[in-house]
Formats: sequence, C-alpha cells, structure tokens
Amino acid sequence: MSTSDLAINLATLNPRAPLRDSIEACLRNGITAIGALRDQIAVAGPEEGLRIIRDNGLRVTSLVRAGLFPATEEAGRAAAIEDAKRAIDEAAALGAECLVILAGGLPTGSKDLAQARAMIAEGLEAILPIACAAGVPLALEPLHPMLAAERACVNTLEQALDICDQLGEGIGVVVDVYHLWWDPKLHAQIARAGASGRVLSHHICDWLVPTNDMLLDRGMMGDGVIDLPGIGASLAASGFKGPPEVEIFSAANWWTKPADDVLKTCIERFHACC
Amino acid sequence: MSTSDLAINLATLNPRAPLRDSIEACLRNGITAIGALRDQIAVAGPEEGLRIIRDNGLRVTSLVRAGLFPATEEAGRAAAIEDAKRAIDEAAALGAECLVILAGGLPTGSKDLAQARAMIAEGLEAILPIACAAGVPLALEPLHPMLAAERACVNTLEQALDICDQLGEGIGVVVDVYHLWWDPKLHAQIARAGASGRVLSHHICDWLVPTNDMLLDRGMMGDGVIDLPGIGASLAASGFKGPPEVEIFSAANWWTKPADDVLKTCIERFHACC
Repeated sequence: MSTSDLAINLATLNPRAPLRDSIEACLRNGITAIGALRDQIAVAGPEEGLRIIRDNGLRVTSLVRAGLFPATEEAGRAAAIEDAKRAIDEAAALGAECLVILAGGLPTGSKDLAQARAMIAEGLEAILPIACAAGVPLALEPLHPMLAAERACVNTLEQALDICDQLGEGIGVVVDVYHLWWDPKLHAQIARAGASGRVLSHHICDWLVPTNDMLLDRGMMGDGVIDLPGIGASLAASGFKGPPEVEIFSAANWWTKPADDVLKTCIERFHACC
Repeated sequence: MSTSDLAINLATLNPRAPLRDSIEACLRNGITAIGALRDQIAVAGPEEGLRIIRDNGLRVTSLVRAGLFPATEEAGRAAAIEDAKRAIDEAAALGAECLVILAGGLPTGSKDLAQARAMIAEGLEAILPIACAAGVPLALEPLHPMLAAERACVNTLEQALDICDQLGEGIGVVVDVYHLWWDPKLHAQIARAGASGRVLSHHICDWLVPTNDMLLDRGMMGDGVIDLPGIGASLAASGFKGPPEVEIFSAANWWTKPADDVLKTCIERFHACC
C-alpha cells in the first residue's frame, strides 16, 4: 500500500517522544512526508534536530509553528516576531513547504478581540517580507472558535482568507478539518482559497462525539462525524495537490499507543475514510 | 436598584429546582421577567406550570425550547414538529415574547451537515405558519460551533439570518453572547438583524478561561472574556429594546448555590459588567 500520498504531523505520535524515534517509526511504515514540530526539534538540539530530518531525506510538508502575536506589552509582541523569524530560518533550513502560523488569542486580561486581531495583522506584516525572502510560505491556520480566547482569534476560513488578501503574496492557509468542518461557508471558502492559490496545507483527523477535552481529544479519521471525503473533494477541486497531513492531538488515547500502531491505523483509515 | 431591565432564564438557577421555588426566588429579588423552561413546566404539571407563571404576572421574554429537527427516520422528524406545535401552544398560553428554537445537530451516525440543515429548514417551514397564526415569534438560536454535532448545526448569526431570510416573517434570532462572541462578523450581523427586525432575544453570560465542559460550564457576567458592553451596544444600536436575559448553564458552580445568591450576583454583575 503506497503511503507517498499521506503526510504525518509528528504531533500525532506522542509529541514528547524523541524526534529520532518518531521519524524512524514513520520510515518503518513507509511515511516519507512529515509535519515537523519546532518544540520537538529544539529538544533534540536545534542543529541536530534539523540534521535528523534532512539526513533522512524527509519531505517536510509543514513546520509547526510560529505566531501567538497578541501580548499586552510591546516587548511580548516583539518577542513573538523575533521567534517567528527564527522559525522562518528553521523552515528554510528544512525546505519546509510552509510554516504554520498559530495566530494567538486574547492577551491576559483582555476582552478586546479587535485589538488582538490588529496585533495578529501587525505580527504577520512584520514577518511576511522575511518569509518571502527566505522562500517560506506562511500558512495561517484558523482554529476552532472554542479556542478563540486562548489560542487563536482567527476562527473561520473566510476570516483567514480576508487577512491573507489584505497582506498579499506569500501567505496562505491551513485547512484543518477539525477546526473548520462545522462552517456552512467551508466549501465556498475552500473554492475561494484555491482560486487565489492560498491552500498550503490540509490537516486531517476527526471530531469525536462526545469530545472530552477542547485541546487534546481529537479523533482518528473515521471515528467521528467529519465528512472527510467531502472536504477532500472540495480541496481537490480547488487545485490543492499536496498530501493531506494527519494531525491528531489525543493525550488520553493515541498518544498512549505505540507509534507503529498509530501509524498503521492512520494509513489504513486514510485509505478507508478519506 | 431597578431590575425591570433584566430577565432571568430559569436555567440559570438549578433547572431541576421546582418551578415555583425558582419563580419565588426571582420575585423576592425584584425579577419580574423570565425565560421559562418547558421541561421545568412539564415537571410542575403542564397546566399547573403555566398557571404558576401566569398567576404571578411574570413577563416571559422567552420559552425554551422546541426544535431538534434532524432525525434519521421520517417519524422522528414528524415527532419534533408535533412537539414544536405543542410548544407554540404553551408559548401562546404564556404570552411568551418568543419561542426559542434549538435547531438540532447531526442525526445519529450521520456526517451529512447539508442534509441535517435541510431537515432544520423543513421543520421550520412546517411550524412557521402555525407560530404566526398563534402570534408566537420563533427565535432561532445559533449555537457555538463546538455544539454543531450534538445540539445545533446552525452556528453563526449570519447563517441563522440567512435561514430567516429564506423563511420570511415571523422568525428571528437569539443573540446569545456565549455562542457568538468570537465571530469576526458578529457586529455586522447584529446590525443586519436589527435592520430586518429579527433580534428577538439577547442572552448574556460569560466565556470562562479555561472552559471545563462544553455544555455546562458557562460563566457569570464579568468572570470571563466576553466584551459584554460592546455586544450590548451593538444590540442597542440595532434597535433591540428588550431586556437581556441571563442564561448560565453551570452545573459545577452556579447551579450548586442558593437561588438568592445567584440572582443577587446576576443583578450586581449586570449593572457592573454589561
């Protein structure tokens, strides 16, 4: 069974596992395209982490992540921008196909969404020229509205594309089914994103019923209610060619299982359910 | 301190409390406008429940709820419509200012949002003429996207208003800050709703950080991150005149406290935070 048409974001395996172990598990299971995690690379040692990925000839469909731009203090916003510049360097060193941007939520104590969103636009404006010069596309990821306060107050594909259109070239979006499946405008906005060449990444997993944790209870494809073939068809029609990338944050279930079992299930479900 | 400008949805007090106890607590605290719960009325005995509310001269700003239209079997959909007709009768008997419509989520086993949404439109079409004849406005309530699978796959104000516009007169929306606060289009859609006279109800509470339960962990006004004055100002500018209605589902916190304490806090926070 060919797996060249599927990428695995390493957050799907326990993200606290050593990078080398996760990569060896991917290779054992025929997976040669990965979404890489900056935190996991940092634990391996920045140079060593990048080397492990490069030396194994892996395709890096995304590097996760930079962003979290809103902060009460100017210094906090500047620090997020500096960190994003380092992330751009790392993405360039890996030949990553995009750098995932997690926008950030409300600064502590703030109730001002408009201000937080302005800070996000400001952060993106600051790093976009640098990303363009480095040849690293920025992939803005709208997150589920239940994460608006704490993680990202960019919450629909329409909103993310409006931001991209304001910024111009060099930035696109992650279409993560988990965050966007419910949106009545999803298919129309995927078409819009495709028409402007802005679909940079397609993350897959499933929405479990019930969902027991807002951050770490994502499901394996087929175990939930998301119409994965329908969304995949819209993405294909929009012109997106890249492999979908499995990204399952699942602290109580999949992260507790051996990596080989998780990967075998991902591959099997991808072929059966997507 | 005047409380005639505030309504209390009885779900804010422990909804398993006897109706009479909850109403007496409201009256003791100067609250004369309520959102009433059909389940609680039914427990009191349908006739007796309606009588308790009427005999106390209460203003009923909303009756909660009918809907849950999607179902796999035709019989299930027909049963939801029949139940909604009974709800319309009850709302008329109470002189309720609107009947809240909880649209319903995906039928068991289904991943077809478009089909579920068509079933919702079908249910609303079936009951709207009856509601109009009874003089009961239907108030479609968009719920937070995290509840799309299980409770309602109507998830933005824009989507709810599109449905209303398709149906015509006699139907409007509930603007519940809990469900809608994150939406970048919220203020524009409130203006749209106001222009077409479709704002029927304004529910207030707060979004806690963190939120520990997707259904039953809503916060007291002021304890979370929602810009209550901002949303209130948009509603006032849209022409909405009715009192806001406090609706806090809080199994682990507010439902465990004495009703008088909850009501005193609601009134105090309404004046301080809204």
